[in-house]
Amino acid sequence: MHVIAAYDIGEKRVAKVLKTFRKYLTWIQNSVFMGDITKAQLEKLKMELFEIIDEDYDQVLFFKLNSAKMLKSETLGKEFNPLDNFI
Amino acid sequence: MHVIAAYDIGEKRVAKVLKTFRKYLTWIQNSVFMGDITKAQLEKLKMELFEIIDEDYDQVLFFKLNSAKMLKSETLGKEFNPLDNFI
Repeated sequence: MHVIAAYDIGEKRVAKVLKTFRKYLTWIQNSVFMGDITKAQLEKLKMELFEIIDEDYDQVLFFKLNSAKMLKSETLGKEFNPLDNFI
Repeated sequence: MHVIAAYDIGEKRVAKVLKTFRKYLTWIQNSVFMGDITKAQLEKLKMELFEIIDEDYDQVLFFKLNSAKMLKSETLGKEFNPLDNFI
């Protein structure tokens, strides 16, 4: 499946969250990751994030699609580095 | 169409960008907006944003889908207020 993840994380925990995301997805903007991921990998990512975040203050949103082909992207401003699997 | 927009905007311009987005989409996280929008409205939003942002420093990413039904969302941490058209 294809996932866009956007997070809003307290400063103390943001570096750990970033490091965890990097293992599974591609960093595309300040607090946005994206990429193809299996259901099992996504569960693993969520469990790892769950260990780091403070549930009362932090938030991670996942937007899940069957395929990247369903998505069209567009950038305003600074160049966006298109990913291989990004249409 | 359904749109997720994520922005990374310099502090001086962020309030104006937020105000502009609010006219067209729903604020769902720190720097993420979402909602149904027509092609004409999206063009209008982009033109308005283009007047505000500094192209060398700021970035707005748009992820466009035919329908919100293609998307499944999931939240980790703080509650996410689901939108009417959000599945």
